[in-house]
Amino acid sequence: APVDDARPTKVQELHVYEINERDRGSPAYLRLSQKSVNSLGDLVPFSNKIYTGDLQKRIGITAGICVLIQNKPEMKGDRYEAIYSFYFGDYGHLSVQGQYLTYQDTYLSVTGGSGIFEGAYGQVKLQQLIFPFKLFYTFYLKGIKDLPEELLGKPVEPHPSVEPHPHAVACEPHATITNFTD
Amino acid sequence: APVDDARPTKVQELHVYEINERDRGSPAYLRLSQKSVNSLGDLVPFSNKIYTGDLQKRIGITAGICVLIQNKPEMKGDRYEAIYSFYFGDYGHLSVQGQYLTYQDTYLSVTGGSGIFEGAYGQVKLQQLIFPFKLFYTFYLKGIKDLPEELLGKPVEPHPSVEPHPHAVACEPHATITNFTD
Amino acid sequence: APVDDARPTKVQELHVYEINERDRGSPAYLRLSQKSVNSLGDLVPFSNKIYTGDLQKRIGITAGICVLIQNKPEMKGDRYEAIYSFYFGDYGHLSVQGQYLTYQDTYLSVTGGSGIFEGAYGQVKLQQLIFPFKLFYTFYLKGIKDLPEELLGKPVEPHPSVEPHPHAVACEPHATITNFTD
Repeated sequence: APVDDARPTKVQELHVYEINERDRGSPAYLRLSQKSVNSLGDLVPFSNKIYTGDLQKRIGITAGICVLIQNKPEMKGDRYEAIYSFYFGDYGHLSVQGQYLTYQDTYLSVTGGSGIFEGAYGQVKLQQLIFPFKLFYTFYLKGIKDLPEELLGKPVEPHPSVEPHPHAVACEPHATITNFTD
Repeated sequence: APVDDARPTKVQELHVYEINERDRGSPAYLRLSQKSVNSLGDLVPFSNKIYTGDLQKRIGITAGICVLIQNKPEMKGDRYEAIYSFYFGDYGHLSVQGQYLTYQDTYLSVTGGSGIFEGAYGQVKLQQLIFPFKLFYTFYLKGIKDLPEELLGKPVEPHPSVEPHPHAVACEPHATITNFTD
Repeated sequence: APVDDARPTKVQELHVYEINERDRGSPAYLRLSQKSVNSLGDLVPFSNKIYTGDLQKRIGITAGICVLIQNKPEMKGDRYEAIYSFYFGDYGHLSVQGQYLTYQDTYLSVTGGSGIFEGAYGQVKLQQLIFPFKLFYTFYLKGIKDLPEELLGKPVEPHPSVEPHPHAVACEPHATITNFTD
């Protein structure tokens, strides 16, 4: 078996916007608890679009499931356990797991990846801009080679009003990564 | 990007008790198989409380889902695939995945973590004391810095009769970790 | 705490066949979307049998869940987010996560493992031979010690017509690994 170079331990920041453009039938709120208030037992499969941090390119999608853990009336929100992946077209994917709180930023763990993200570990900060339609992520990635330039554009400061470039929304070829996931 | 020290590979043991105090509506047994015996198709979201191994402090909660894989009549029990996280207040979290057998101890994999558990890997031994209300875990963690003292108290020998300290059950400030998860 | 040797970074290939012999009630297609076409909201718990790449020995089972993400009429297929584990009897298990496309080979991430797979990371190639009954996997594993010989037999070239050795199907003692998972 071939011997790799030692696994890289430097931290690389990667910024991603996740946007629900309401055209994917997502989220599917499954009220399996059969209660009127969000409760343990409810499950929420979802899949949204993702864009580069500079909002110039469509990258792909998120895909996964949120498990409703607890309704928090005092926070007017919910705690979920989130298990999902980010798909980056031909570049591969990153899988993450951790808490998603509808009322507060959180950190999730990066549990693995494929393609250029093979061997990835570390954590990711989730910032909610407009619940549940617009989120901003900062990955702190270790274990991988240097990320490609097109993913590393200067991120647009996260704000509820930010929007991806119209060319990226339209998936024009110059405004997507190669074989972006859809 | 900054360069970290090499990733630690020494093993740190961490002991945790998980206790279902029946006040969180957990577990939610979703009999989606629509069969009278537990069967593939059933899903079991859950969330319980966790305490330090010395039972002196409330740490936080578990949160996740068990997928019923197979009823084992000869063992009078069930096989589940378990996907969940342990939340440690301000310290962060650990995510795990693997088999949960209602009739036997098992090892699950540590798939990642956040906060002081960022970069964690290794495995965790699950010992069932009272099904499904009291469990004892021994994490064998690698990839992280030295754990804080308050998580490393001498563990109480696992036994069905053990109980957390009443101050910890009551979440008195001296008997919880900082901003314990609830 | 003891200090391990540095974590191995060499790549070890491991070949596994997954076969649905239709005797485990798997998959359980839960049409929770309540739509006539496969849609976000549908969940698919599953568990199949696994054999060594040379098809001489029964290893154990897979166990986990597929989350239907999107029906792709133009591909006559579906995109799933797959979260599952491979069980190798006394050897332990590997957990994986990533995309399962019914019409195309994919790579998933290895998110962790137990036993001889403790500390495993890397990725796995999924090749579909007969949807959804026969699949071939090539794991590219890092972070673990040398795999045992009995898992490393020369793989049978993947083809829709391949079948495990009848002795392995019958779980005869010489044609299983030790305490194969069932």
